[in-house]
Amino acid sequence: MKKIELDQTREFTDGGMKRFFLVQDSPYFKIINFNLSAGHTFPVHSHDMEGQLSILVLEGTGDFLGGEGASIPAKPGDILVSEISEPHGVRAETKMRILVTIAPPI
Amino acid sequence: MKKIELDQTREFTDGGMKRFFLVQDSPYFKIINFNLSAGHTFPVHSHDMEGQLSILVLEGTGDFLGGEGASIPAKPGDILVSEISEPHGVRAETKMRILVTIAPPI
Repeated sequence: MKKIELDQTREFTDGGMKRFFLVQDSPYFKIINFNLSAGHTFPVHSHDMEGQLSILVLEGTGDFLGGEGASIPAKPGDILVSEISEPHGVRAETKMRILVTIAPPI
Repeated sequence: MKKIELDQTREFTDGGMKRFFLVQDSPYFKIINFNLSAGHTFPVHSHDMEGQLSILVLEGTGDFLGGEGASIPAKPGDILVSEISEPHGVRAETKMRILVTIAPPI
């Protein structure tokens, strides 16, 4: 049993980059906190494998991105669930913090 | 790909009860939003199976509970990771909203 405090990982990099903090990596799931600078796009991607992921918005606003230009508004408390094999991404409008859980881990 | 808005599931039941909303249930993980009334304890429990779970505090304060009376302060942004087979619980001091992810699903 371990506790991670996400208020301790609130770090951003200027210039449209992202920072990330590995919260957990086990055979069961991987949990990652990404902090996106305002304007940064986490590019749409997918992996050809079984499994699903969730993306929870902790802070900030932007859009969840999907295949064929799909875009869904994203605000704190919004959670996207996607197949790992399905195209997914995030565009940060403001500074944006997200928590990604991938099961099984990539 | 689906989006769930957790600001739409902000419902509590008076009298120390909890309400819950199933966000996702698949072969890969189960994601549940529990809303605990102030003073409610989600009793310590465990399941004899392989896997891990995470408990993220969305709102409110209280304690993560473990075996043998263990207690760890819990505030928004704190995330507990535990084996499913390890005793775990939550005590809500204020109204408390948590997001639980279980992989594989129970």
